[in-house]
Amino acid sequence: MSATNQVYIATSLDGYIADKNGGIDWLNMIPNPDNLDLGFHDFTSKMDALVMGRTTFETVCGFDIEWPYQIPVFVLSNSLKEVPAKYKGKVEIVNGDLNKIVEDLNKRGYLNLYIDGGRTIQSFLERDLIDDLIITTIPCLLGEGIPLFSKLSQRLDFKCVESKIFLNALVQNHFVRTR
Amino acid sequence: MSATNQVYIATSLDGYIADKNGGIDWLNMIPNPDNLDLGFHDFTSKMDALVMGRTTFETVCGFDIEWPYQIPVFVLSNSLKEVPAKYKGKVEIVNGDLNKIVEDLNKRGYLNLYIDGGRTIQSFLERDLIDDLIITTIPCLLGEGIPLFSKLSQRLDFKCVESKIFLNALVQNHFVRTR
Repeated sequence: MSATNQVYIATSLDGYIADKNGGIDWLNMIPNPDNLDLGFHDFTSKMDALVMGRTTFETVCGFDIEWPYQIPVFVLSNSLKEVPAKYKGKVEIVNGDLNKIVEDLNKRGYLNLYIDGGRTIQSFLERDLIDDLIITTIPCLLGEGIPLFSKLSQRLDFKCVESKIFLNALVQNHFVRTR
Repeated sequence: MSATNQVYIATSLDGYIADKNGGIDWLNMIPNPDNLDLGFHDFTSKMDALVMGRTTFETVCGFDIEWPYQIPVFVLSNSLKEVPAKYKGKVEIVNGDLNKIVEDLNKRGYLNLYIDGGRTIQSFLERDLIDDLIITTIPCLLGEGIPLFSKLSQRLDFKCVESKIFLNALVQNHFVRTR
């Protein structure tokens, strides 16, 4: 049984996941009248659990929507001690060493992990724990913002295995780690 | 007659055109036994002239190869006063306001301009003078380096019109400015 850690995220053409004020309205710059989900449902249906940082968790909690995930969510946090009551049974807090966290989740049967949140993705990449990067490029140059990628202590090589254009404007590239 | 300014360049997955030491050996990380040119000849055959910065010019001059361009080259420089003898007839120095330079070249019949060099591309983008970005993503994360893009005083919107995978590993996305 092979386990994978996968990223599915959108960035601007210049690699930002949010603008300099944290804004993400530009994610919707391309009209999407039929609410195409750009493969998100297909992607999550292959994932066994979602691992996200506290910031992403709190951002999602702040959206005025139903809880959007069908799979168990693990929130990486050293400061959060307890899951708010309304998320009990859906969300679990995990902390400690990332390799150990992944190993424990794999042992519990969560083999394919969807990794989300800027700092979380960066931490996983720093430990070379990412196998797949599915990046949807929103075709705008923001000029400044919060970058998806950050410094690494080693070069990480991937290959692009699939590329799709959506809505005649967005492009989604799927990169797989080559080791 | 419509004039365009086009970029054709390769970057790492994290958006760098050179590593932190200026190195570009990672550009060749994917074996290319048949020397596929990834559409470069097709691209330049549609261009009337190449505009590059002095740094790029000096880098190309330093390669131990035949002069690689079939089209006239204009080097943006305030410090270079004269073209080295061996490049006379192939290279011309231009300087001053970018909009004026483009206008002058267009008047001379050079309508489709290939814009090359990191700082030159950034200067053209800052003035919203780029119409096409053809970006070949070399699928590695360098972690640090010389970025293709920089700060902008306004957001610039594009759309992705074509995406191609080469050598089962690289992806080339063609973005067109939407105004």
